[in-house]
Amino acid sequence: MTACIGIQIGVLLSHMGKYDPAIQEIFHALADPTRCAIVAALGQGPRTVSMLAEPFEMALPSLMKHLAVLERSGVVRSHKQGRIRTCELVPARLGQAEQWLAEQRAMWEARADRMVDFVESLHRQEQAHGRRRR
Amino acid sequence: MTACIGIQIGVLLSHMGKYDPAIQEIFHALADPTRCAIVAALGQGPRTVSMLAEPFEMALPSLMKHLAVLERSGVVRSHKQGRIRTCELVPARLGQAEQWLAEQRAMWEARADRMVDFVESLHRQEQAHGRRRR
Repeated sequence: MTACIGIQIGVLLSHMGKYDPAIQEIFHALADPTRCAIVAALGQGPRTVSMLAEPFEMALPSLMKHLAVLERSGVVRSHKQGRIRTCELVPARLGQAEQWLAEQRAMWEARADRMVDFVESLHRQEQAHGRRRR
Repeated sequence: MTACIGIQIGVLLSHMGKYDPAIQEIFHALADPTRCAIVAALGQGPRTVSMLAEPFEMALPSLMKHLAVLERSGVVRSHKQGRIRTCELVPARLGQAEQWLAEQRAMWEARADRMVDFVESLHRQEQAHGRRRR
């Protein structure tokens, strides 16, 4: 049953243009206030884990869990030098989520535009019809 | 402790520009393949609940739960006429998430640009210094 839903969703998603199945991981990574705040802090530049931990007054293991979710989604990457781990933002990954949202909006707006065109063409036809009758 | 973290995060988030605390609800709503597929389907135009249910082969109560999450986030709205519920996308709400992502990227990119400016000014100073010494 689950596999079946997976296939059905796969078929549906394949019609959604350049769909990256990992895009939900980005949204999942951002569906938390601490992780949103980490992303915002990293927007200012790379930060060590202890610099990131400071404003949260959070136990380090909890912060590391949030960082792991962000890293898994590809929104953040980190490297370790000696005992210090430094994190940085991967803006291209945020850009992918941005693009997906923009595509859904664009589809909706194109449809709304087509609706306006359709109503306008109906209006023109009606006016032309009215002139012929006069 | 939790309240304390809340306040700290609040302070941090207040530095993040026009921050809407409900933005995580949008990301949470999109952190699921079924809900992403529903948003993509609604990009094509309003759909009744039974039209939305069709490609998923999913029990209606499960689909309704997904729709409730999307409605709570403001990404989707619905209205009932008789026994038929019709859902439609709220593109402005997707736009808010898009804007938040764009802001984080812009912050990062502005910082990267400042870094390039700094390196270039160092290079110019070095060249001027070299010319004076010749």
